[in-house]
Amino acid sequence: MVPSELEQAMETLMFTFHKYCGDKNYMSKDDLHKMMESEFPEFLKNQNDPRAVDKIMKDLDQCRDGRVTFHSFFSLIAGLTIACNDYYCKNMKGGRKQ
Amino acid sequence: MVPSELEQAMETLMFTFHKYCGDKNYMSKDDLHKMMESEFPEFLKNQNDPRAVDKIMKDLDQCRDGRVTFHSFFSLIAGLTIACNDYYCKNMKGGRKQ
Repeated sequence: MVPSELEQAMETLMFTFHKYCGDKNYMSKDDLHKMMESEFPEFLKNQNDPRAVDKIMKDLDQCRDGRVTFHSFFSLIAGLTIACNDYYCKNMKGGRKQ
Repeated sequence: MVPSELEQAMETLMFTFHKYCGDKNYMSKDDLHKMMESEFPEFLKNQNDPRAVDKIMKDLDQCRDGRVTFHSFFSLIAGLTIACNDYYCKNMKGGRKQ
């Protein structure tokens, strides 16, 4: 059974996370930095803030143990995608409100 | 600039949602049903419960207005992907705990 496009997208989210985790099941701050640089280069460039990743890490590392779990990683992806969707709904899909 | 794999996956999540919304910015129960049937056919088959979509709708329709917003849709995707990731970490990635 061929996975649907949505299932493939979910798989990509999962394996992207593990690509940067390595053998662990969480990302360190260095892993997060590498992930942001490789996966969101434009986003980082537009931040104009050398501490952007530090701030994101602080938001995601809820247990203050220097670890970004898959759950926290998904919160980051959710925040970015919901922001993109808001922009799309307001400016590109007929300018309607969500 | 070519989007990264992760950015493409986020785009797929967004446009899959809008594919089933049509002109609206939310999914009705019928839209959700069509989405689940087309995008998660195996998941629905394994539920063995004809009311599975009704139950999911009840969970997602937090405002009780019969609408699944992008935010709620993302919660569904998060729940499913986190469950897949837990399974992957426990059973496939060396049996380590998250």
